[in-house]
Amino acid sequence: MTSLGEVFLWELLGTAILTLMGCGVVANVSLSKSLGVGGGWLLVNFGWGFAVFAGASIAEPSGAHINPAITFGLAITGDVSWGQVPVYILAQIIGAVLGAVLCWAAYKLQFDTTEAPADTRGIFCTGPTVPNAPWNLVTEIIGTFVLVLWIITNPPASPGDTPGVPDFGNAALGYAAVAFIVIGIGNSLGGPTGYAINPARDLGPRIAYAILPIRGKGSPEWGYSWVPIAGPIIGGVLAGLLALALPISS
Amino acid sequence: MTSLGEVFLWELLGTAILTLMGCGVVANVSLSKSLGVGGGWLLVNFGWGFAVFAGASIAEPSGAHINPAITFGLAITGDVSWGQVPVYILAQIIGAVLGAVLCWAAYKLQFDTTEAPADTRGIFCTGPTVPNAPWNLVTEIIGTFVLVLWIITNPPASPGDTPGVPDFGNAALGYAAVAFIVIGIGNSLGGPTGYAINPARDLGPRIAYAILPIRGKGSPEWGYSWVPIAGPIIGGVLAGLLALALPISS
Amino acid sequence: MTSLGEVFLWELLGTAILTLMGCGVVANVSLSKSLGVGGGWLLVNFGWGFAVFAGASIAEPSGAHINPAITFGLAITGDVSWGQVPVYILAQIIGAVLGAVLCWAAYKLQFDTTEAPADTRGIFCTGPTVPNAPWNLVTEIIGTFVLVLWIITNPPASPGDTPGVPDFGNAALGYAAVAFIVIGIGNSLGGPTGYAINPARDLGPRIAYAILPIRGKGSPEWGYSWVPIAGPIIGGVLAGLLALALPISS
Amino acid sequence: MTSLGEVFLWELLGTAILTLMGCGVVANVSLSKSLGVGGGWLLVNFGWGFAVFAGASIAEPSGAHINPAITFGLAITGDVSWGQVPVYILAQIIGAVLGAVLCWAAYKLQFDTTEAPADTRGIFCTGPTVPNAPWNLVTEIIGTFVLVLWIITNPPASPGDTPGVPDFGNAALGYAAVAFIVIGIGNSLGGPTGYAINPARDLGPRIAYAILPIRGKGSPEWGYSWVPIAGPIIGGVLAGLLALALPISS
Repeated sequence: MTSLGEVFLWELLGTAILTLMGCGVVANVSLSKSLGVGGGWLLVNFGWGFAVFAGASIAEPSGAHINPAITFGLAITGDVSWGQVPVYILAQIIGAVLGAVLCWAAYKLQFDTTEAPADTRGIFCTGPTVPNAPWNLVTEIIGTFVLVLWIITNPPASPGDTPGVPDFGNAALGYAAVAFIVIGIGNSLGGPTGYAINPARDLGPRIAYAILPIRGKGSPEWGYSWVPIAGPIIGGVLAGLLALALPISS
Repeated sequence: MTSLGEVFLWELLGTAILTLMGCGVVANVSLSKSLGVGGGWLLVNFGWGFAVFAGASIAEPSGAHINPAITFGLAITGDVSWGQVPVYILAQIIGAVLGAVLCWAAYKLQFDTTEAPADTRGIFCTGPTVPNAPWNLVTEIIGTFVLVLWIITNPPASPGDTPGVPDFGNAALGYAAVAFIVIGIGNSLGGPTGYAINPARDLGPRIAYAILPIRGKGSPEWGYSWVPIAGPIIGGVLAGLLALALPISS
Repeated sequence: MTSLGEVFLWELLGTAILTLMGCGVVANVSLSKSLGVGGGWLLVNFGWGFAVFAGASIAEPSGAHINPAITFGLAITGDVSWGQVPVYILAQIIGAVLGAVLCWAAYKLQFDTTEAPADTRGIFCTGPTVPNAPWNLVTEIIGTFVLVLWIITNPPASPGDTPGVPDFGNAALGYAAVAFIVIGIGNSLGGPTGYAINPARDLGPRIAYAILPIRGKGSPEWGYSWVPIAGPIIGGVLAGLLALALPISS
Repeated sequence: MTSLGEVFLWELLGTAILTLMGCGVVANVSLSKSLGVGGGWLLVNFGWGFAVFAGASIAEPSGAHINPAITFGLAITGDVSWGQVPVYILAQIIGAVLGAVLCWAAYKLQFDTTEAPADTRGIFCTGPTVPNAPWNLVTEIIGTFVLVLWIITNPPASPGDTPGVPDFGNAALGYAAVAFIVIGIGNSLGGPTGYAINPARDLGPRIAYAILPIRGKGSPEWGYSWVPIAGPIIGGVLAGLLALALPISS
């Protein structure tokens, strides 16, 4: 069993890699002086998917949650104890802030030279194309429900492993699989809200955006920020509850 | 062996995930206020492929058919008993309706604001670019024949597993493989008819489109609906018959 | 060991699936009334790559060559006997013709309605963007050399398996790996000549194009047809010769 | 243990395949008479990623470094002895020159006919969209840090294997995994500088560009060339130092 200190360390590191690379791909497609500018939605989704691949395979010792919605879902099913939940979530949020700051450093010159600096919030955190909190919430709930249901219904890691993302007996396979699921959710369910499906991935970079000295930056849109927190948590909890009712052999 | 009740449950759930995500990617590329609008054919195919990946890996206990053409092909080869066939198919159709309804919920605001509401049928079910029933049937037969032949000629799951999609001894590998096959069929053979290659995937969402209160919606085009049912079933049966004649070691 | 009759059967079937799907993706991106029209080079490459995945995994019992350049390379290294070579190649060419005919059937209505029927040759066989036989030959030699060198330097199938494409102990992994190599060669070395890298894949569909009753079709360009035969064979033989000189542990 | 001579041979061959295919994809998207022209950033990244897949799986006997930053990182952690480092790096640089020359041969006719011959340097080596050495260095450090940290924190190859890229017990899996990481870094962190993340990949082709008789070629921009050498080495060393401090079970 991984110690709580190690859980904190690996979740922080994995989530930092996740938001460094995930925010990075959006910076790449949206900042004027970037080689990937205008690269399209499939590029964004492969960006986030392989960000999950990288972050999850680094965070293997802690079960590679790197997402509070997964931690909540696994707490509902009893795979993770409620006492561990705050440690996971704190590490995930701090890591997510850190990764977003590193993304800003990697793209510093592009932030300085972009033609639409007020639109840079979307690099850090999600927002709806049609603002309407209840239906935006529904979209985030459905997307996260698919993610967490998939995680819970698939084979757990080997006995003795820390509960988390299934690794199918091989880290490369398991983290490729979860990357494909995230790419799939982005392709299919990311259109309306930009698919947070992870409260830390949204809140952490939003905090970074509020703090960082980005030239001509816009509002962090705190008014919307509760939706990509509440939606994924509800989706994860619903998936955990459904899993309890399903005849899953463990 | 999985019980008939569990077959029903898992096929329903897996097919619901399939059409939720599959219809979702078409919604994403075609609704005006969606982030993936205009995303192109490769995005659509990765969307459907990873929808198969998600749905099949969730429906593992029932053999992950989530497609009546596969169930028919495996009934021809004797891997599935004919008595089970109606249970599979009923679950697949009900699941497919349910997934399409969830897709509509996820994209509710985009349906409400799209610039061409009468063209939304293509999000739910397939249609030919050049209408001509016999040749449209040929296209669907060929595409499904490739899918089912691939499934039957590849190693069966471990002894004792429910017959279905090959898992190559590892669920992540098997379902990635079938996803690659579906992406490949979409890339290569999906151009003329939008590749149903699965009667439930077409009929279920078509029923949902007929029923759902979509603003300004068009016709569900019932006149074409038999083609994406008959074509895939014929293709699956032909693949099963060829497989019986091939020297496949089991 | 697979019998010669079975080698013939599986190579024919596998190569037919290869050209059905491979020519299919080019039809999809180039025929006016196809859903993938204008889909771009990455779509073409994923199309051919997953065509290799499908064809190779079906042709597993014969070693999944489905390409005379691979058969020649493995004859040079002694893994395949020279007596078997004509059986492999004959099956590959017949299969390639058959697959191209099926592709035409799948896209019959799109061939009938395309705006540039004289340009349909490129759907079936390759051609250079800048005609110059010696340098076109160099391009095909280099591309095929990479393919066959990769095949020969990677772990052979389990002892007792028919020599051919490495399967890394698992068919899904091996054929995904060779698909990635083909996608990579298309991405990187396909720009000048359209990457035949397989004499059967080019000659078979060229014969089909010459024979099929395609409305308003152009010339099959027989004058160029020797380049995508000679280049890949030279590339495969060179890779086999280099492999003989390398310290590869078997 | 692989002998030093074999290390030299395999690293040279693997790095040659890497730059042949990697430079090839940039040639394909940027030369006027190439089939992939204008193919976009995702195509470039899949090109480099599958170039790594091909090169790494060929260079398996030497640990598949094919990148001095990885060699330095593994020297810091003590997995590779400092005495071997010069052999690795010399082979990598020579191989990288050789691969770039082969890329030029494959695209000879396209170099001769391109509309912007002075802009061909970008096919061979990287350059910043906004020149500023310190921040360009930061970008290269961060990108390489992710690559080398991922390599070091993931399971080492089987005991007795040459230390290098993790193979997760299966070469196809391991090299697909590192390819996904490289595609991910390109998607997410490649926008500002074109992601060298490998000193040999940049220096070798830059030397080739300086030497090759390319019609109307531009400057090799030697003034920038130290950044894609220093940045990746610093990133690799930092990842090695962090790894020493992390509680990684070996």
